[in-house]
This record gives sequence, C-alpha cells and structure tokens, in this order.
Amino acid sequence: MNSFREDGAAALDWVASYLERLRDFPVLAQVDPGDIRAALPPSPPELGEPFEDVLHDLDEVLLPGLTHWQSPRFFAYFATTGSEPGVLAELLIAGLNQVGILWRTSPALQELEEVTLDWLRQLLGLPDGFHGHIEDTASTGILSALAVARTLRPQARVVVCSEHVHSAADKAAKLLELELRKVPVDEMFQLRPELLELDDVCAVIATIGTTGAAAIDPVPAIADACEAAGVWLHVDAAYAGPAAICPELRPHFAGWERADSIGVNPHKWLGVPMDCSALWTRRPDDFRRTFSLVPEFLQSPDDALNLSEVSIPLGRRFRALKLWAVLRCFGRTGLEERIREHVRLAALFEEWVRAEPGWEVVAPRHFSLVCFRREGSDEENERLLERVNASGEVFLSHARLDGRYALRLAVGNFRTTEDDVRLAWDVLRREAS
Amino acid sequence: MNSFREDGAAALDWVASYLERLRDFPVLAQVDPGDIRAALPPSPPELGEPFEDVLHDLDEVLLPGLTHWQSPRFFAYFATTGSEPGVLAELLIAGLNQVGILWRTSPALQELEEVTLDWLRQLLGLPDGFHGHIEDTASTGILSALAVARTLRPQARVVVCSEHVHSAADKAAKLLELELRKVPVDEMFQLRPELLELDDVCAVIATIGTTGAAAIDPVPAIADACEAAGVWLHVDAAYAGPAAICPELRPHFAGWERADSIGVNPHKWLGVPMDCSALWTRRPDDFRRTFSLVPEFLQSPDDALNLSEVSIPLGRRFRALKLWAVLRCFGRTGLEERIREHVRLAALFEEWVRAEPGWEVVAPRHFSLVCFRREGSDEENERLLERVNASGEVFLSHARLDGRYALRLAVGNFRTTEDDVRLAWDVLRREAS
Repeated sequence: MNSFREDGAAALDWVASYLERLRDFPVLAQVDPGDIRAALPPSPPELGEPFEDVLHDLDEVLLPGLTHWQSPRFFAYFATTGSEPGVLAELLIAGLNQVGILWRTSPALQELEEVTLDWLRQLLGLPDGFHGHIEDTASTGILSALAVARTLRPQARVVVCSEHVHSAADKAAKLLELELRKVPVDEMFQLRPELLELDDVCAVIATIGTTGAAAIDPVPAIADACEAAGVWLHVDAAYAGPAAICPELRPHFAGWERADSIGVNPHKWLGVPMDCSALWTRRPDDFRRTFSLVPEFLQSPDDALNLSEVSIPLGRRFRALKLWAVLRCFGRTGLEERIREHVRLAALFEEWVRAEPGWEVVAPRHFSLVCFRREGSDEENERLLERVNASGEVFLSHARLDGRYALRLAVGNFRTTEDDVRLAWDVLRREAS
Repeated sequence: MNSFREDGAAALDWVASYLERLRDFPVLAQVDPGDIRAALPPSPPELGEPFEDVLHDLDEVLLPGLTHWQSPRFFAYFATTGSEPGVLAELLIAGLNQVGILWRTSPALQELEEVTLDWLRQLLGLPDGFHGHIEDTASTGILSALAVARTLRPQARVVVCSEHVHSAADKAAKLLELELRKVPVDEMFQLRPELLELDDVCAVIATIGTTGAAAIDPVPAIADACEAAGVWLHVDAAYAGPAAICPELRPHFAGWERADSIGVNPHKWLGVPMDCSALWTRRPDDFRRTFSLVPEFLQSPDDALNLSEVSIPLGRRFRALKLWAVLRCFGRTGLEERIREHVRLAALFEEWVRAEPGWEVVAPRHFSLVCFRREGSDEENERLLERVNASGEVFLSHARLDGRYALRLAVGNFRTTEDDVRLAWDVLRREAS
C-alpha cells in the first residue's frame, strides 16, 4: 500500500477533477441493468491491491454506471449538492471515525449535533424549545416521530395526512401497524383541513413542499385541529425547509412552530452530502421514553442525555461535523443567496413554459420546483421525458397530479446556473418537436 | 473560500497527522458534559468563513471532546477501525454524492452493493443463495429482519432470543410491538436450546459473539428447532462475523448458513468506517414484500430490483464503495492476518490474566474479547475501571455476567500492537495496586 498521504492526494485529485468535469457526463446513467455487475470480478482478490487500482476502476468500471446527482443539470426528484466543505468534512468524519452511542463515546459528536441543530433552528426562524438531532433520512425521521405518537396514544391507530404525503409515511405506518388515512387535496394540491377527522388518530403529518408538486398543506388550520384533539403533529419539510432561511419565503412556513416534530433535510437543499436529515421536537422526553434502552454494557458514570436514546440506531456517525462545516463556510447569507437564486431560476423557467404555446404549468410554484406538461396525452409526455433523459444532457422526473402525468423540473444544485436551466428548456423543446 | 484543492490538501493533512498522533491523545475524552457546547458560538455565522477556520476549531474546540475510536488503545465495547482505504473511500463517496433509491438513480451503487456483499459472503464461507444489502447499523438490520418475520406470521407476536441478546432486539421488538422472550443461558453464556418453545413465535435471534461475553449461541440446535416450527431465524454476528474469514475460527459459525437472515458489521472488525452493516437473507422476496412501496414519482421504465425496496430508508449512500475499497486493498489474506493477530493478542492477554494472582478470567474466550475481573467486590472493579479510563492511557468497558461485574478488553483495531495490549495490562495492574 502506498502511504495514506499519497493515496489521499490521488483521491482528492480524483474528486476535484470529477467536480470540474460535472457537465461532461450524461446526467442519467446510460447503462442497462447488469452491465456494471458484469464488469466486476465475481470474487474478491486474494492479495491486497494498491489504492490506485480502486481509483482506476472507479473511472473505468463504475463511472458509466453513475447517475450524476452532483451535476448542475440534475433536475429530477429534488436536486441535491455535496458542497465542497461538506465533502471535505466527510473525509474528516471518516478519519475520526467517531461512534456516537453514549455521550462519553463522543462528547464532541453529541454536543456539536445539538449545537448545529440549534443553529439551523435559528436560521429557519423556529422558536426556542425545539430539541434537534440528526437522522439518516426523512424516512427514518417520520418513522421515529410516528413511533413516539403511537406510544402516547396506544389505542389510536390512525395517522392522517394528505393524499400527496411522501411514501415514507406509508412505509412507516406499515412498520408500526398504523392505518394511514389520506385526505383529499384541493386544486392547489393542499390538504383540505375541513375534511380532517381526528377521532382514533395518533398523529397528523402536514407537508410543506410535497414530493409531487411542492404543495403546502395549511399548517395553521391543521395545528388548530391537532391541538383541539390532542394529536401529535409532524411537519415534513424535508425538501422545502431550508427555504425558511429567506425572509420572503418564510410565510410559507406559517404554523410549523406549533408542530410536535419537524423534519428538514440539509442533504437536499442545503449543501450537505448524504446523509443528514434534521429532526426537531418540542417533546424530547417523549422521544426518550420511546427509544431509551440503556443496557448494562452501556451504563456509564456520566449523567448526560445520550443521542442513542432518541433514535432507532444505537450508533451514529459524526454527521454534525459536515453540517457544521457547511453552515460555517457558507454562513447565513451564503445559504440565503443560493436558495433565493434557485427560486429565481425556477420562476424564470416557469415564465418560459407559460409563454410557449403548447406547454402549460400544472401546479402553483412556491419554491424551486416547476410542474408542467406538453400538450398531448400522458403517454406522449412520458415518452418525451424518456427522450430527454436518454439524451444525457439533463435529467428530470415526473409526478401524477390530479390524475395527469406531469413533468417536474427541480432546481436545487448549488452549481446550477441560468445556462443549465436554459439548456433543460432547449432540450425539452427540441425533443418535443 | 479557498479552492477545493487547497482546502482538501489541508483536510487530508489534518487526517494524516491525526492518524500519526493517535497514541498521543487520552483515549476516553476527559471533559465534562457541556464543556464542548460552552466552547461553541451560540449562533451560526452571518457570513461564510474559510474552511481553515473549521480545521482550526476542530483542533482547538472539538479535539478535547473526542473519544478516540481510532486509537490502537481503544479496547472498549467492540473496537473498530476506519482503515486508510476506507477513509479515503468516504471522500470519494461524498464527492460523488450518489443517492441510491431506484436502480436508475445509481446503477453503480446498486450493483456494487450487491457484488461486494457477495464477495464478503464468499469470504465468510456462506453458501450461494444469500442476497446481501447494506444497512447503517445492526440495529436497523435486526429491526428489518423482525419486520419481515412478523409479516410472514402476523398472528405470532413473540421473538425468542438469549438473555444476552443485544439491546437492539429490545428496541426493535418495542417498535414492532412484539414480545421479546429471553431464554436463560448456560455457564458458557450460550442460549440453552432445550428451553426453546416456539409456539406463537415469529422469529428467533441467535447470536454468534454476544455483546457482553462474545458467547456463541448453539446455532445448529436452534436452526433445527426453527426449521421444525417454520420460524424465521436471524443470526446476529455483528461483531464476530468477520472472524469467519479465518479457517480455524469458522467452526464457531456452524449452522449460520441455515439462517433466514444474517447480520455482520464491516464497520466493526473489518476496517470499514462507520457506517456499514451487512445484512444477508435467503428470502429477498419476503424483504421486498415487506418494504416495497414504489410510489408514482418513482415509477421508472427500468425493470430492476431497487434497494429501497428491501430497506426502511428510501435513499442510501454509496457505502458499497468503502467496502469495495477495503476488500480490495487488504485482500482476503490481509484481512485474515489482521483478525488472526487480534485473536492472538487477546489470547496472550488472557494468559497474563490467568497467570496473575488476584485476577480471573470470567468467560470463555472464542474471539478477540477477554472478560475478566480483579478479586474484590463489584464496586471495587467498577472503581478500578473508572481509574483506568480516567488515566486516558487506554479505554476498556464492562459487562455484567452471571450477576457479577466483569471488565472487558476487546481487541479489534487494525493499528493495535502487542505493546498496546501490554500497556493495557500494565495500567490495569498499576491502578489495581
């Protein structure tokens, strides 16, 4: 093995070069199922190989099988960014290899996680009194919140949400053996609060920025109903949450401060590499009662909260370090500017669609997601999307809104420029004609 | 912001220097709860700061609050290693920032995860027919396996295991509303199979390498009972699993190939940084039936298994890349040699304890964990451990075995030498006298 410093310099150069070449790759991997597997040896090597061989095969074997989430031309699902400070923080995290279980197994991990989550709470304008911790994904966060809600009302086995709730809610309800009752939405794709019935209900999930259309459920009215019925309110703002940094977007978040728990994904729109999903709760003691199991082998003489007592996994990585690096290296203003620019780019794209005959915008745009379609059938739109993605020039995804197939363009990568959005529009029009 | 290359060189140098200085730090953090929090600003910065300030504060503010899991003198719980190739692979993972959801969102992630898990299956001597995927921790793996088992026998709400099962089983049973029935162990701390009663049981957890004493449950007898009763068998080999690479240790794993699911943590004894927990199952279709929910926004024209269909979180990191890097850079022989050396060091320590008047070994040693105690009361042993750990020279933990307090020395860090183990013994004897 070469020295760590030499191998490290090669790895760093590989990543730097990759980030410089992002616009050179087809965004969506242009391979068939099994292609990558077939190019890999069926068995591991007997003897150790040099690290440079790993880098070599990363280029030769794996690169064609990557879908480039880092690409400025990735507009599918919700776009993400592994920003430079976030990427380098992952190197530090791995080098330190902390395992947060009890406070004593890494006091710095535990306390930095609490402090950075409190920093982010302030950035988003949430009041004091929320305790935050990091989950791997919003799926686990929703599962955890519903588990706590179930503990508080063990006889109430129903969770209420909009029909546009994220599929993570379905999965969590299945695991927890709860019934998920989906309430119809209005023409804005927002939950209709007059249809809420909270008998036998243990929790309501309200979404600010739904997966399909980035719709905003009416959180104030939902919070009224939850408070009257004594029901847990979870606000899922996994995608849109970071937008609350911008004062002009904060009105979209009215009422979320009344939630019992809130989920926001810094690994989506805040420059932090996967995985970093923030979960705040005003009721940390209820989380502790649900998840705390400190067995004998973990009894310790310290008197401190242990993060393993509020989460499903026993051990956690030092994820707080990457959130800390990102919040520090961009600062409030740096993050605010980037989010505002993404919203501007989405608004621009929306204008182009509205101005072009034969195209229509099919959902209100609040943040950086535009839902639109071309005239013609669902099948024609679906084939259009396939042609666009097969070109490799940009990558978009779709939703079904009000029964119709819709194309989705989600801006959210820190490296995306107006030219990239313009390219998406050019490719769409080219493939449509 | 400096350029990524400059900041990266500084981060790499920081990690290299950290790994070179590992023996200079107190292993267990010598701070009080709140010390780190108090040294951090209460609010995030308004403007972006240079990355070098992050590195500066890592040294000045966070370092005293780290418990050094990378230290060769970390002998607590189960020792871990973030090996050099594993650490550098995390840099690559973050740089690529892949998000595995559907096959198409990262074909390379999906197929490399399946291939590396198959490589590891071969290294451990497991037969064909197991499908593997990666979970964050063994806690999530156990939760997933029990969820599948519950789906198959929805009326059977009992899970059976030894009283020495990992606390993750308690947490999973609580979440899944299953009753965890703990069977007494024999004088070897192994589950007594003659006490198994499998009416109304949906799953049995057998452990190879328990958390307290690294005991080995009698898997062949348990598998007989499970097969006769049609009950799911999960084998938890989170710590000990990698030892199956060594032919002389493989007999300890007799019968595990009959399990329905098996968990092994490459992030414990196999040089992979947190987090990387392997889960194999002979029944991937049952996993898919339990966890598969492919909502509209994720429908895709590809016909391939998606890893989100076998796991709780929707999205996954490119963890396979670090497992791939470690398996390649060490090779089978490199891993085998390291594990064999750890077992040799543990055996040596065991000899020293046995030979010294006033000390005793309190559990059979199969792998790299030695359970022992000094003559005197439980309280005296507890205070001895606190003095040893407060010295900062080494870090050990404890267990309660057969009602008595036991000290635990777990070898498992790739950088640990005989001198480090000797130091632990010297410190123990010094603090005992």
